Amino acid sequence: MAAKSWKLIDVEARAYIENLAITPDEVGGPAEGYSVTKQRLRGGLSDGVDLVRVDNGTLAFSVLPTRGMGIWKAFLGETEIGWRSPVRGPVHPSLVPLMEPGGLGWLDGFDELLCRCGLESNGAPDFGENGQLIYPLHGRIANRPAHKVEVSVDGDAGEIAVSGEVDEARLFFNKLRLFSEVRTKVGQPGLTVLDTVTNISAQECELELLYHVNFGNPLLTPGAQVVLPVSKMAPRDPVAVENLPQWDQYGPETPGSAEAVFFFELAADADGRTQALLKNAAGDMGVTLKLDRNQLPYFIVWKNRQAAADGYVTGLEPAINFPNPKSFEKAKGRVAVLAPGESRTFEIAMDIHTGGASVAAAEAEVQTLQEGTEPMVLQQPDPEWSAG
Amino acid sequence: MAAKSWKLIDVEARAYIENLAITPDEVGGPAEGYSVTKQRLRGGLSDGVDLVRVDNGTLAFSVLPTRGMGIWKAFLGETEIGWRSPVRGPVHPSLVPLMEPGGLGWLDGFDELLCRCGLESNGAPDFGENGQLIYPLHGRIANRPAHKVEVSVDGDAGEIAVSGEVDEARLFFNKLRLFSEVRTKVGQPGLTVLDTVTNISAQECELELLYHVNFGNPLLTPGAQVVLPVSKMAPRDPVAVENLPQWDQYGPETPGSAEAVFFFELAADADGRTQALLKNAAGDMGVTLKLDRNQLPYFIVWKNRQAAADGYVTGLEPAINFPNPKSFEKAKGRVAVLAPGESRTFEIAMDIHTGGASVAAAEAEVQTLQEGTEPMVLQQPDPEWSAG
Amino acid sequence: MAAKSWKLIDVEARAYIENLAITPDEVGGPAEGYSVTKQRLRGGLSDGVDLVRVDNGTLAFSVLPTRGMGIWKAFLGETEIGWRSPVRGPVHPSLVPLMEPGGLGWLDGFDELLCRCGLESNGAPDFGENGQLIYPLHGRIANRPAHKVEVSVDGDAGEIAVSGEVDEARLFFNKLRLFSEVRTKVGQPGLTVLDTVTNISAQECELELLYHVNFGNPLLTPGAQVVLPVSKMAPRDPVAVENLPQWDQYGPETPGSAEAVFFFELAADADGRTQALLKNAAGDMGVTLKLDRNQLPYFIVWKNRQAAADGYVTGLEPAINFPNPKSFEKAKGRVAVLAPGESRTFEIAMDIHTGGASVAAAEAEVQTLQEGTEPMVLQQPDPEWSAG
Repeated sequence: MAAKSWKLIDVEARAYIENLAITPDEVGGPAEGYSVTKQRLRGGLSDGVDLVRVDNGTLAFSVLPTRGMGIWKAFLGETEIGWRSPVRGPVHPSLVPLMEPGGLGWLDGFDELLCRCGLESNGAPDFGENGQLIYPLHGRIANRPAHKVEVSVDGDAGEIAVSGEVDEARLFFNKLRLFSEVRTKVGQPGLTVLDTVTNISAQECELELLYHVNFGNPLLTPGAQVVLPVSKMAPRDPVAVENLPQWDQYGPETPGSAEAVFFFELAADADGRTQALLKNAAGDMGVTLKLDRNQLPYFIVWKNRQAAADGYVTGLEPAINFPNPKSFEKAKGRVAVLAPGESRTFEIAMDIHTGGASVAAAEAEVQTLQEGTEPMVLQQPDPEWSAG
Repeated sequence: MAAKSWKLIDVEARAYIENLAITPDEVGGPAEGYSVTKQRLRGGLSDGVDLVRVDNGTLAFSVLPTRGMGIWKAFLGETEIGWRSPVRGPVHPSLVPLMEPGGLGWLDGFDELLCRCGLESNGAPDFGENGQLIYPLHGRIANRPAHKVEVSVDGDAGEIAVSGEVDEARLFFNKLRLFSEVRTKVGQPGLTVLDTVTNISAQECELELLYHVNFGNPLLTPGAQVVLPVSKMAPRDPVAVENLPQWDQYGPETPGSAEAVFFFELAADADGRTQALLKNAAGDMGVTLKLDRNQLPYFIVWKNRQAAADGYVTGLEPAINFPNPKSFEKAKGRVAVLAPGESRTFEIAMDIHTGGASVAAAEAEVQTLQEGTEPMVLQQPDPEWSAG
Repeated sequence: MAAKSWKLIDVEARAYIENLAITPDEVGGPAEGYSVTKQRLRGGLSDGVDLVRVDNGTLAFSVLPTRGMGIWKAFLGETEIGWRSPVRGPVHPSLVPLMEPGGLGWLDGFDELLCRCGLESNGAPDFGENGQLIYPLHGRIANRPAHKVEVSVDGDAGEIAVSGEVDEARLFFNKLRLFSEVRTKVGQPGLTVLDTVTNISAQECELELLYHVNFGNPLLTPGAQVVLPVSKMAPRDPVAVENLPQWDQYGPETPGSAEAVFFFELAADADGRTQALLKNAAGDMGVTLKLDRNQLPYFIVWKNRQAAADGYVTGLEPAINFPNPKSFEKAKGRVAVLAPGESRTFEIAMDIHTGGASVAAAEAEVQTLQEGTEPMVLQQPDPEWSAG
């Protein structure tokens, strides 16, 4: 069997590979044209960041063990899938002031294609009495380094996987472990993220989780459109109310405009499978996110309509809760509670479409999911969904 | 003379040894069977942590220059002396949000066998008006890297020492320097920590200091017992009041139970020498801490009775003050004030016992210290010792 | 043409040179006797700090890419130009708790000869409602690592330059880029800092900027004097009022004394050129700062009269605003607003004088600038200049 695996990082075993380049020759089997490299970045904000780059021959993407196994950027040939944050990363967590009193320090590290928000909390900052920060914006998991990382390649099946284990644990508090595996097939324009979150405590632990999946230029330019099978939707706040008539359209760059955020429940098939499409202005490029509504019941569309220099970007965000302050989500019953030892699994597939036919087919799949479901569109924020 | 020393770190002199392995051959002299290694850890939360491991042939232990010269773990053969924190470290200080607004970020780095709490403050978080954090939980010294580290080995006397210098200094504020030396003898199941704290300022500086010495499985299992020569003791709070009848006993793992903390003055001999024993359930393994009550007048027992996964652990904690918010300790006169240039020295020896006879002998030594002193046991917290 | 350049750091291009030593032989041309070295420091608070040392044969100085292109120390032969902070750095930004709730964490990294304060804010901490920190002491730029760093040497002209690019940018907030070049001429006892700050956003961005240029022993001992061409001056606060009669004199080390701070507008020539001199007690050593009042309209003298161990130091500080809380500066109209894409340039030259003649000549230059301008000396703080 032509399959091989490499332990890149294992802190407990004192194993660490600084640089590695894997080629088909080392693995054997019929699969060809791919590569996996591991680097440690140096200098600037990226100093000390470990980066695993998988190039399956068609799609290349980088996984960041140092940033909670986030996916930094992907490339289809020369075409970048991801966005240009005003923060040029990847940023080492030690330079992200996550717990600054205002709770927005997370933004200093935010430039990934796929960034997890969680695990103990994932929404807007939450403050206690006297304005003291309790939960910072979007939580801690994206700034926790993985302590165990592996790459495996199956040269027969043409499968590549990067896996990592990340703890978000504190004595006296929540103790959760994320095991993440990013899988891809040689030659395929897609990848799958398969996450398992486990309560490693002997007590109940709380979980919030949201996948902040972000796209900018060239996929996202004015005229791009998001296509969703909608079961229910509501604007988050007055800004979104104003943008509601164009909620699925991406307009011109508008310096200084506020973000518009829409909350959804998606329509799904009988098994709960559903998917969302983002297509470009010309309709000849797109990306589909596939997910299981039983795992991720909510979906958020984040439209940041600022100028390119300031981060013209949209986020398609499957989640188990809405990104409100945790106290609000808890009051609304959307914070998960994991029993000791309990695990939850989350799977998200991302497929890149090139060519009008592929985009049209993806759009048709969304329409099929929509059939039979009359979208409930709220014209005002839902007080059950949006914090005041 | 067969004695040799290695300068591992000297920032001012630009000296830094990344990896080192010292063997008896290099040193000469009759001492044999020991080794000293220095590593720089990579990956995960430990990335960039320097670790000096001393194996004296009987006892092996690791000193952490990067974490204020704390002692991470010790091993007697395969037997781990230390504890299994839910935080798997050692953790680099840059990933410990010490100053997060709630003041509990210190917990993110806490997994040592011996961790100093201090130097400017060492207790529970202390807040000013409006809830603004002034002193974080347990102070800063455990997350300050040493700027000068040496190892010396005397092959004739069979003595090994690891020393380091750590500054806790800020313009306009306190300026204290810790010089710590950890000593051991080849073949002996013990070590000695010899610390000197010096005021390097031309002004008075305040000092709080507590040695958080922590033991878990296998030494600490239900049925283990702490044996102290008690002069005076008081429960810290209502939880401790409830646990008072069993204060010296370690009960079953109790998920979700609150920590029980007891405050002590120990009985001592005429010179102030005293010691504390922790023995396992079978009575055939134990550890003794020896100290000088003139140096460290107070003693704290911390019983964290949670499940093993959440950190079933006890802390035996010699201190110059109680770990209350600093403002309380100051009001009670327990914050030391060092004159310009003044030094204070603190010495703690840790001996590991194996076999019932050794444990029994250690217990007898405690009993001897107890003789002639009637323990004063308060049934309620002492308002002079416990913050409200 | 005998000119050569080295790209030391370029994060986006994945270029990083850990160690480098440049000699005249490699460059060619008539210039001789100089060297440029690049190191990565290890151990203690300095672990991971990149340091570029330029020795032009007469003056040696170190630039810190990791600390926002600050200048750490300079040496004229064995004579140190700079100061001895109680913090022994250079300190890696990841160990500086800039955003601690009290807002003073910046002090933990402060030991440079030239340290920029800014860019979004540069003064005393500014707090919002409930005492929540908004802007920390002296801003963020000194603790942001450069992502692009180059050295160039012209062996014909005998010119050496170290340049770097540092971003202070956050999604939804200010986005400024500092490009800094430090230039020196072979054999000359001086250097020039040439900075350009650019708004890289499509929206307006705010700028505050102050150059904290600091001198201690041996230049600064009791009897040293600052010589300024004064147009207007005011004591900052009651401490400065008390020190006003001796404002330009440096008195004995006074443990525990509070800092005395004076605010100025300097007199200048018709082009706005002006300069400030600090001369030692004997009058045979000094340093001149030359600047353009059109670029840097304000000037601050910081006298920290504590003991040497606590940082006996003075700061000569050209600035575009006073180091008050930003809300005060904004109310007074001293916060600059840069249009999208707009740049501002700041140039400061530092010349070292040795020998009485050179010092006297420098003093005469200041007198010339003073001629024709009657200094307006306020006896009390100016409510337009000092926050209450």
